[in-house]
Amino acid sequence: MTLHDHTYGFEVHPWRLRWSGLDTDALKKTETLFALSNGHIGLRGTFEEGEPVDHPGTYLNGFYEGRGLPYAESGYGYPESGQTVVNVTDGKIIRLLVEDEPMDLRYGRTEEHERTLDFRTGTLRRSTLWTSPTGHTVRIKSERLVSFTKRTIAAIHYEVEPIGEDMKLVLQSDLLANEPVPTPGNDPRLAAALDAPLVADLAACRNYWSILVHHTKNSNLHMAAGMDHEIDFPDKFDAFIRADGDLARLTAAANVPQGTKLSLTKYIGYGWSARRSVPALRAQVDAALAMAMEIGWEALKAEQVAYLDDFWRDADIELDGDAELQQAVRFSLFHVLQAGARGQSRAIPAKGLTGPGYDGHTFWDTESFILPMLTYTAPAAAGEELRWRHATMDKAKARAAELGQRGAMFPWRSINGDECSGYWPAGTAGVHVSADIANATARYLRAAEDEKFETECGVELLVETARLFAGLGHHDVNGKFRIDGVTGPDEYTAIVNNNVFTNLAARQNLRDAAEIVHRRPDIAGQLGVTNAEVAHWESCADAMTIPFDEALGVHQQCESFTLLGAWDFEASVGKYPLLLNYPYYDLYRKQVVKQADLVFAMYTFGEEFTDEQKLKNFDYYYPLTVRDSSLSACCEAVTAAEVGYLDLAYDLLAESVFTDLHDLHNNVSSGLHIAALAGAWTDCVAGFGGMRDFGGNITFAPRLPTRLTYLSFRMVVRDSKIVVAIDKGHATYRLLSGPPIELAHHGEEFTLHDQPVSLPIPEIEHRTPPKAPPGCEPYQRSV
Amino acid sequence: MTLHDHTYGFEVHPWRLRWSGLDTDALKKTETLFALSNGHIGLRGTFEEGEPVDHPGTYLNGFYEGRGLPYAESGYGYPESGQTVVNVTDGKIIRLLVEDEPMDLRYGRTEEHERTLDFRTGTLRRSTLWTSPTGHTVRIKSERLVSFTKRTIAAIHYEVEPIGEDMKLVLQSDLLANEPVPTPGNDPRLAAALDAPLVADLAACRNYWSILVHHTKNSNLHMAAGMDHEIDFPDKFDAFIRADGDLARLTAAANVPQGTKLSLTKYIGYGWSARRSVPALRAQVDAALAMAMEIGWEALKAEQVAYLDDFWRDADIELDGDAELQQAVRFSLFHVLQAGARGQSRAIPAKGLTGPGYDGHTFWDTESFILPMLTYTAPAAAGEELRWRHATMDKAKARAAELGQRGAMFPWRSINGDECSGYWPAGTAGVHVSADIANATARYLRAAEDEKFETECGVELLVETARLFAGLGHHDVNGKFRIDGVTGPDEYTAIVNNNVFTNLAARQNLRDAAEIVHRRPDIAGQLGVTNAEVAHWESCADAMTIPFDEALGVHQQCESFTLLGAWDFEASVGKYPLLLNYPYYDLYRKQVVKQADLVFAMYTFGEEFTDEQKLKNFDYYYPLTVRDSSLSACCEAVTAAEVGYLDLAYDLLAESVFTDLHDLHNNVSSGLHIAALAGAWTDCVAGFGGMRDFGGNITFAPRLPTRLTYLSFRMVVRDSKIVVAIDKGHATYRLLSGPPIELAHHGEEFTLHDQPVSLPIPEIEHRTPPKAPPGCEPYQRSV
Repeated sequence: MTLHDHTYGFEVHPWRLRWSGLDTDALKKTETLFALSNGHIGLRGTFEEGEPVDHPGTYLNGFYEGRGLPYAESGYGYPESGQTVVNVTDGKIIRLLVEDEPMDLRYGRTEEHERTLDFRTGTLRRSTLWTSPTGHTVRIKSERLVSFTKRTIAAIHYEVEPIGEDMKLVLQSDLLANEPVPTPGNDPRLAAALDAPLVADLAACRNYWSILVHHTKNSNLHMAAGMDHEIDFPDKFDAFIRADGDLARLTAAANVPQGTKLSLTKYIGYGWSARRSVPALRAQVDAALAMAMEIGWEALKAEQVAYLDDFWRDADIELDGDAELQQAVRFSLFHVLQAGARGQSRAIPAKGLTGPGYDGHTFWDTESFILPMLTYTAPAAAGEELRWRHATMDKAKARAAELGQRGAMFPWRSINGDECSGYWPAGTAGVHVSADIANATARYLRAAEDEKFETECGVELLVETARLFAGLGHHDVNGKFRIDGVTGPDEYTAIVNNNVFTNLAARQNLRDAAEIVHRRPDIAGQLGVTNAEVAHWESCADAMTIPFDEALGVHQQCESFTLLGAWDFEASVGKYPLLLNYPYYDLYRKQVVKQADLVFAMYTFGEEFTDEQKLKNFDYYYPLTVRDSSLSACCEAVTAAEVGYLDLAYDLLAESVFTDLHDLHNNVSSGLHIAALAGAWTDCVAGFGGMRDFGGNITFAPRLPTRLTYLSFRMVVRDSKIVVAIDKGHATYRLLSGPPIELAHHGEEFTLHDQPVSLPIPEIEHRTPPKAPPGCEPYQRSV
Repeated sequence: MTLHDHTYGFEVHPWRLRWSGLDTDALKKTETLFALSNGHIGLRGTFEEGEPVDHPGTYLNGFYEGRGLPYAESGYGYPESGQTVVNVTDGKIIRLLVEDEPMDLRYGRTEEHERTLDFRTGTLRRSTLWTSPTGHTVRIKSERLVSFTKRTIAAIHYEVEPIGEDMKLVLQSDLLANEPVPTPGNDPRLAAALDAPLVADLAACRNYWSILVHHTKNSNLHMAAGMDHEIDFPDKFDAFIRADGDLARLTAAANVPQGTKLSLTKYIGYGWSARRSVPALRAQVDAALAMAMEIGWEALKAEQVAYLDDFWRDADIELDGDAELQQAVRFSLFHVLQAGARGQSRAIPAKGLTGPGYDGHTFWDTESFILPMLTYTAPAAAGEELRWRHATMDKAKARAAELGQRGAMFPWRSINGDECSGYWPAGTAGVHVSADIANATARYLRAAEDEKFETECGVELLVETARLFAGLGHHDVNGKFRIDGVTGPDEYTAIVNNNVFTNLAARQNLRDAAEIVHRRPDIAGQLGVTNAEVAHWESCADAMTIPFDEALGVHQQCESFTLLGAWDFEASVGKYPLLLNYPYYDLYRKQVVKQADLVFAMYTFGEEFTDEQKLKNFDYYYPLTVRDSSLSACCEAVTAAEVGYLDLAYDLLAESVFTDLHDLHNNVSSGLHIAALAGAWTDCVAGFGGMRDFGGNITFAPRLPTRLTYLSFRMVVRDSKIVVAIDKGHATYRLLSGPPIELAHHGEEFTLHDQPVSLPIPEIEHRTPPKAPPGCEPYQRSV
């Protein structure tokens, strides 16, 4: 697919995403793409006037409703209740009456309309020139933010200007609970519907201020939403406020002369708790609003810019040769930041807080795809996410015990840490999620040297997951350590023995646990770790089964994989995603791969494979992989780049980074694919930069694809901040701050001091990459 | 467990089951054990007076209600609707008023009470001496039957005699629709509840006759229940009848003098249809009732006795040394006959028509456990069942197509032929059910030489299932034919590659199909079978993968089985059935076996194993098998006997045959385990008789366990009827009727003519059998 400017309705610009047009059908995409979040509060990019709307959405991280999970045939250990993210009280709404006609883009005439998400200001701006059905024209401008610096606060600045005449204008600024949301279809990827989940506890108002407190019916979580306002209008105006049940409303009416504006600044505060009382929640939100009013709109904006300046200084990726890709990469980094910035001991859901998809659940995506970026760009956010995992340790231990296992078994999908998967081949057999968490923990500890986290969380996370895998596997009669009956990353091959990814992840987990126990005997002692236990972990790791087909010279994704039947790829053209057109039964028993599994293992555990194996494995598995998961392309891109298929890597990077901007999975309306967006970082840094971090040793092997003439990226490693700039012939390493750091460039080790180091990039011979399955070709963007 | 007479409340008698006592809690058992059925109508053994009752139940084979199947996470090909057997209009009810006090065993004083199921008369008799709370004593006698000769008819003869005084008695004989039934618990083995599933279409009455027609809400099947009566009372009596909606009632009131009886004979007729109209159904039931009235009670009883005389002549098993076992074996044969006798192109459900268990579904039990007995004892019934399977061919082909397969894929569980399993590792991966049907077809064809069936059904059944397996498997790079991702008989090891049982069953299927195509080119041509297709089947069969562990010298139940982790049997004592206490995830990945799988394969496909393999395999798998399925003990018994563990075989036989009489699975209230009962026949005939039928060659290898001094059994093979009588030293073969037949005795072939043949039984050395898992020891009955 060739992409042109505006093909997808967006202006190409390196630092913002601007959409202009009158097509309200595009709301399906833009509400999600224009979502604002700080990881605590999420506001979908719906219009202030509430309608037209595709899917209203205001989310608070961790706030969910429970629901029973039904089973046609029940089984031991099946979770009885699920969790679904709730669309909470909507504070975004500011309705406008223009001479008794409600402003609504579906009526009258819209002469100009554009919205802009700005990656440097962290705001969503909007400008609309609209003429009402009765012929009155107004210009509306708004700007909104969800504060990165004050995590309980969002704010909207809204102004309306009458054009060509004096005009009677009325603004209604709402808090609205239990907004109707569309019922999702049968696609299991869409969230289950929740009808009016909030029960009113309290409604209060005074002057321009109001608050609503609600709780959920089943999960019994309480939330408060408050608003306060500043009205900027030179003349007299009428304003009153009311609050009752599910609605609070400030109404402001004025005769607005031509040449003046009616301006409203709305501050919105949110709080929720499973334990605090209604008065306590009210007090918390009142305080947040008071603080926001005291700071004021301009200062909030300035703080937002400053926060983002810091982020871009540590995380930015610059590239030459593909302006749209540059924009998409920054869009990706911005949204990953939004998802994780201020979660503060809460999860990072697969969709962030941008939509109801996957019920708002968090999966292994977080530790395996999102944290690799955050660890080296916003390490505090990575640490906070892992603190959330640690906070759910009791649930993970209880789940392990329920399933007859030792240690901690983290959930396949969850909001609060309880397993919510109703499909046990994922929810129980997908054990690698626990190793993924352990590996992310070890990676974070090496990259950030966060000793407080290590003490409070890290050792326990590594030890309890190691216990899980030591117990899950066993030494067989030949002395090999096997982990049987698991589901690896590839969800089209489930309930298998000795999945290479899982076994390597477990081996890493066992070894990291052994290492940290040696280093932190104090905490290990509190956890009851004995020398014998550590010796056992090491024996498990050393004897780990890694299936390899000697005849073909390739690894088996799992035992016997290369003996399975061939998938008829020709017959399945047009039937993607396969899971909607073929039974699990048939997918599982054939050589068809949903998403990078062995290929992901070759990136994550690259030291375990020879260069020749990497090439042969990639050539074997790439033609079997249909990329029905958005987690696939970014992994394949890294290994493609490593084995020398640079242009294929570029195509795959494009596929990952445009997942949502181009709506490749036809479900952007339910939220962004945060992991795929984080994959943009991974593909630039680990793919074309060749960055690896094995055991804390940061190495690079940069090499650009045809289309890029320049690529630079930034990283935070321990106390050092570096930038790597790559062109066709050289890579230049610079230390931005912090102590000198040991690095390597294409195998050559060097110490980076204050002086930049520029090193030549070795030539490689051109290889023709393997072909993707028919109908699964990636973006043709490389040439 | 040592068993004594009356331990379980039953008198030990070779030809009947009599229970006497006042413990109404025993209704949980007796309602099921005393169920009457002819395979078309099933009446649970509830009291005429309706209460006390554990679980009311009147069933019509094939009559079900549909219901949506819910999924926490849905998937392609999951059945959307399930089927549940319906408790239809109850015609068993005859209530009695004794001087204005309803007869109810829970009130007043019961002085005598006994019920007797008679295996030779095919009736259930009851005698009760009861004194009402106000002190009036009556003797009640009843006898009921479900006619083997008139499949739409049941009848009850009921008489009540006042004791010691003249008495005002009122009888109310009902047809009652939508009786309340208990809601089952969370145990997935119990049927889902259906509340008032019947909608009234018609109610009519006249004189002593009445009829009710209803239909089901979802499945839209129509049924009619009718009754007519004879009242035998010398003096004047009042009688009137009413019918409306869900109730028809004949009321008969009389002053009954001491020394006389009030007698009522009730004829009940049933009919149902998915297609016929209400008037047509009414006419059908009216005709059945007219026929029954014309025949009369005594003649119906005489026909019943004659039918059973024929059955016992062909099917009886006699044994000396264990009177209770003799009774239990006949009980078993009787109930298997009841389940299959007059199904006439309907299924034989796992519970017969004796209770709501398993939703009334039919599984592979039928072809693999029940048909082996019926094929050699009541071959017409076996043929009728296979005709039902053939009648569902279109559904089986559609299911195969839905799942991307060729040929016919029969359902794991169903009432009408549509897949009803909500658990795909059984409902989709349990492919062996299709081979089981094919193998039962081939067995029936060889044993019965039913050419009409072969022409109309047999060829197509073999061809379409062979097509399934030829497509399901594939030749791997080594040229071996693999069938991956299946679930074999052992439900604690699912989604595996190359399950030996499945692969051998498929091989047999492919070879039988090839053979019948050669023999019946006429039909094969109509089915589009080509020479190339047959050659392909043969190549699949010849190259079939049969996993074998060379180091251990045992077969692997499935690929890699012997490398799986050990189950901690010590820890699971007291936690049976394991599926209620352990997740599938953990069961599947360990060496723990729910039910005979490889051991069953060694019986069914015994020619594929050497004697040494049979012994080593049995010794390996028996200690891993927990027999959480009632299908296990009978299979293990056969192989135990074959390898020389005769007393263990006896214990296992006892476990199978007492499954329901001793309520070993604590769920007899939901219906009989018909397959386990048929296993009694298999254990006697194939176990101690050593009977095998490979390719139509009937061979024997008789040998008795310690406790039995004598065993004889009868068989129908083609046109020959034989009896085999075994004592400690000899076996005597006699031809009862029909042409001479080729047989073999411990490997020695002979032709059985009119003269009996008596042959000595070779000695074997005593071997100590392996131990069952702790807590899973079988009945200790052998010594």
